[in-house]
Amino acid sequence: MELEGVEIEDTFAEAFPIKVARVLITAVNEKWALEVAKEATGFGTSVIGCPAEAGIEKLLSQEETPDGRPGVAIMICHFKKEGVKGQLLARLGQCVMTAPTAAMFNGLEAEEKLPIKLHFFGDGFEYEKEVGGHNVWAVPIMGGEFICEEEYGVKPGVAGGNLFILAKDQMSALTAAEDAVSAIGQVEGTITSFTGGVVASGSKPGSQKYKFMHATINEKFCPTLKDKIDASELPADVNGVFEVVINGVSEEAVSEAMRAGIKAAVKVPGVVKITAGNFGGKLGKYQLRLKDVLGL
Amino acid sequence: MELEGVEIEDTFAEAFPIKVARVLITAVNEKWALEVAKEATGFGTSVIGCPAEAGIEKLLSQEETPDGRPGVAIMICHFKKEGVKGQLLARLGQCVMTAPTAAMFNGLEAEEKLPIKLHFFGDGFEYEKEVGGHNVWAVPIMGGEFICEEEYGVKPGVAGGNLFILAKDQMSALTAAEDAVSAIGQVEGTITSFTGGVVASGSKPGSQKYKFMHATINEKFCPTLKDKIDASELPADVNGVFEVVINGVSEEAVSEAMRAGIKAAVKVPGVVKITAGNFGGKLGKYQLRLKDVLGL
Amino acid sequence: MELEGVEIEDTFAEAFPIKVARVLITAVNEKWALEVAKEATGFGTSVIGCPAEAGIEKLLSQEETPDGRPGVAIMICHFKKEGVKGQLLARLGQCVMTAPTAAMFNGLEAEEKLPIKLHFFGDGFEYEKEVGGHNVWAVPIMGGEFICEEEYGVKPGVAGGNLFILAKDQMSALTAAEDAVSAIGQVEGTITSFTGGVVASGSKPGSQKYKFMHATINEKFCPTLKDKIDASELPADVNGVFEVVINGVSEEAVSEAMRAGIKAAVKVPGVVKITAGNFGGKLGKYQLRLKDVLGL
Amino acid sequence: MELEGVEIEDTFAEAFPIKVARVLITAVNEKWALEVAKEATGFGTSVIGCPAEAGIEKLLSQEETPDGRPGVAIMICHFKKEGVKGQLLARLGQCVMTAPTAAMFNGLEAEEKLPIKLHFFGDGFEYEKEVGGHNVWAVPIMGGEFICEEEYGVKPGVAGGNLFILAKDQMSALTAAEDAVSAIGQVEGTITSFTGGVVASGSKPGSQKYKFMHATINEKFCPTLKDKIDASELPADVNGVFEVVINGVSEEAVSEAMRAGIKAAVKVPGVVKITAGNFGGKLGKYQLRLKDVLGL
Repeated sequence: MELEGVEIEDTFAEAFPIKVARVLITAVNEKWALEVAKEATGFGTSVIGCPAEAGIEKLLSQEETPDGRPGVAIMICHFKKEGVKGQLLARLGQCVMTAPTAAMFNGLEAEEKLPIKLHFFGDGFEYEKEVGGHNVWAVPIMGGEFICEEEYGVKPGVAGGNLFILAKDQMSALTAAEDAVSAIGQVEGTITSFTGGVVASGSKPGSQKYKFMHATINEKFCPTLKDKIDASELPADVNGVFEVVINGVSEEAVSEAMRAGIKAAVKVPGVVKITAGNFGGKLGKYQLRLKDVLGL
Repeated sequence: MELEGVEIEDTFAEAFPIKVARVLITAVNEKWALEVAKEATGFGTSVIGCPAEAGIEKLLSQEETPDGRPGVAIMICHFKKEGVKGQLLARLGQCVMTAPTAAMFNGLEAEEKLPIKLHFFGDGFEYEKEVGGHNVWAVPIMGGEFICEEEYGVKPGVAGGNLFILAKDQMSALTAAEDAVSAIGQVEGTITSFTGGVVASGSKPGSQKYKFMHATINEKFCPTLKDKIDASELPADVNGVFEVVINGVSEEAVSEAMRAGIKAAVKVPGVVKITAGNFGGKLGKYQLRLKDVLGL
Repeated sequence: MELEGVEIEDTFAEAFPIKVARVLITAVNEKWALEVAKEATGFGTSVIGCPAEAGIEKLLSQEETPDGRPGVAIMICHFKKEGVKGQLLARLGQCVMTAPTAAMFNGLEAEEKLPIKLHFFGDGFEYEKEVGGHNVWAVPIMGGEFICEEEYGVKPGVAGGNLFILAKDQMSALTAAEDAVSAIGQVEGTITSFTGGVVASGSKPGSQKYKFMHATINEKFCPTLKDKIDASELPADVNGVFEVVINGVSEEAVSEAMRAGIKAAVKVPGVVKITAGNFGGKLGKYQLRLKDVLGL
Repeated sequence: MELEGVEIEDTFAEAFPIKVARVLITAVNEKWALEVAKEATGFGTSVIGCPAEAGIEKLLSQEETPDGRPGVAIMICHFKKEGVKGQLLARLGQCVMTAPTAAMFNGLEAEEKLPIKLHFFGDGFEYEKEVGGHNVWAVPIMGGEFICEEEYGVKPGVAGGNLFILAKDQMSALTAAEDAVSAIGQVEGTITSFTGGVVASGSKPGSQKYKFMHATINEKFCPTLKDKIDASELPADVNGVFEVVINGVSEEAVSEAMRAGIKAAVKVPGVVKITAGNFGGKLGKYQLRLKDVLGL
């Protein structure tokens, strides 16, 4: 298969169930909404070593926020509902409540709700009110008043949607990955939780040499090992590979994000091939085939 | 006391001992060095609810980095040395090693070193080399090679240096706080770990109303409560207050950062007064007096 | 009149006819599309002293551009059609054709078209093709190929739509002006051509003291002169005033931009009053009343 | 010759005399200082079609500015002294005086001074004062007071210093050019006036086919023409070429900028060769040899 002259491998991304919450953060301007969203979702690339998988979903215009201010939607993911709750409590309490002009609202309709009670910080001076249809607490703080909703929807989502971008060299692959991440940044209900949205070190489960390691490099996709191993999966002209990993509120959202990402990546000069990562279908509940995603 | 027409209160910031590590992150360009540094130091405002206090110290020019590429120095702080180690392992392994074109080096000369062994991820394909006087591992990854040093200095530092900016209204106080943070961003050996460097919700220990709360609002500095409580410490014309909290590698570094921050803040129209937060000297080991900091 | 507690004066913005062209600039990523758009619209605040009034209209998603790449729409305005043509030729030839990965397309359906012939730069190596329904030239350059359309629509537009933001102090007024500009940045067919979209030095025609000056300060709106002149129009609690000036492809577009800007500005703490600038209706063809704009 | 494995051609950049002014712009924060600097130096890539060659020299810390606020140094260049004067008057009057919180100061010690009289805008309400050793006017405006110095040094400088970056493909060459521009951004007394500092369409004088053209493509460096012409100067593995053009206050400054740019560029994977543009020494007064620049 091909898309705009770039080979699309007939394979699939293998993805997993995860629990997801979605928070709308607003502030006096986009700069601060983004600062807050970045801090609250930082140290959140992968639950293998981070306390959550978290990221910025998208910028919200003033028409899309409960209080009519500029905003950002973020998503916080964890394998367990209780994990999502703990992470919401810590991240919202420490990174949003403390931040200048920030406010926060539930951004996910869901049957299950998690109570995130921050208003006690007001020491009795706090009061309830309604903002744009949301019941919130107003907590007097040094910077003014902190506005927070205290019930957050949580629901099953999908983690680990992905695409691999293979290019003639590193910088072409990287530019294409950046463009893919940027395009995915406009798809509602999805995040790319890794640093800048891009993964440089895609892995395989386990290790050939170190028995204590749960995951090690995926040497078949490492350009500098191309001529040192037998089973490299890299074409001769490929010297740069980056992966984009996507979490979303649903299989459809992740599929749409993969489509947007691939369409953006193939525009970049030097990109040779798009593929995706899977474990032969043995580990994950979801299989997102590139040809279905792209309608090819 | 006064500085450029702004009242400086004769008080002190009360600060605490903490353990600090410092990491130099480099990348193919400043954009990626910053992305990596942001992700690695995110969810790191305060150890009260975050797993570490972490932040960006400063941008490094190509002459200041071991590999001659653009870079960023970050600091990771925790009350205990083992805490620093755990956080370095998780944050560097998950947010730096996975990131496109990133490399990392020890940035702190110190007697004590923490081993942060990431090279096993290379599954035997990794090898040792020397970069700009640092012994590093080169781990083949999809994006090329990940270069990492594996011993990081850790030493006692100072947490909780601070300044309070009181202004005629919120936006003046906020602009002044932003300028203070920006000026502190040029002081070596210091970070402002809160979101965007600014704290909107300075607190008091304990609570009058909720016995289960360890900290609640500092109502004496809340503008919206000025006329509702007896003991407000806010002048009549003050309607906006923000705090900047500073961690550093030494008392001198924190003092220098406070000085730079205050000098920047007083330039902003609408700023009325600068003060600092303390607990009467009962809790913290360090007392940084504003008049000493400023040489007034 | 009031909007969210902020006084809205019952007055109007007085605006003028102008000729407008609109160009779609695309590039390999948003960063470069923005760089190109900034350079091509720089030195373009006011035709009083600049060769054009020019600005960024809005970011374009990959679905909105002819070539499916990230893009930015810009507008170039001049009182005369020939002025628009000269400015397009110089700005597109010098700032877009020279820029890495840039392409450009007509962005305005209009009866009149201006020929902007840049393909001769290809010295015979250039060739014609079709991109997303646009007839373009492909010019081989060092960076690859420069893609350019050569016919640009020009039509009558409206210059000088405006709003004045009066606040308790400078920083509140400035933050509100920034937010207004940001909101206007989402309104199609409009630009705010001044530096960062904000005007700090609104003027009156002529001068009381210097006969050779065509325009001098509008002293009735200068906070530092409030107590030095008799006829200040500033309320006692106003110490900061900024203006936002809007050009657009139509009266409706400018009106919509004013509405978006005002709605954003009134959200900022410290804003006291919104008004607009006019010359008593003597100079301009268009009168945009705030109450009509806001539907109050 | 080689630098870090990249071929350095033994050739020279041919450069020309030009007149230079240097202006220090300050503002309430770095954001606004940069906005102002961008607007004031926009539409200023090349005097072939722009009214000036202009650009941002570097960010200034609060210690480097006359008023202790954040700042940016810009340079404005024109072949004639009167051209510099006209451009200063228009660009500073329209893009700086109108901008929120902006102030401006002479940034160049020089025997010759250009008078740039903007204070008449104050209509008699303006007054003189001294700021950080500079004699300035304070002009009351809506946004507060505009502070401007009115004498600007002008002196002979050097235009057209350059380097060509040849890489395996476009994105590698572009990333390297971006890094070069970023490194040059730290060299005092120099600017890269083209869009984002990078030139995609290096030219030759005249034309083979179109007699009315003064400059057309430099086909020997166009990757897409490599196999279509006889005399391509591109190595077989080069598919992307970008140029960085430098103006400076002296030959030494331009030489230092070229050195910094080349050192940064060779770090980027995929870069194959560095060369420079000249006209065989027939046109320009200055010849900057790469081997001298680099001390090879």
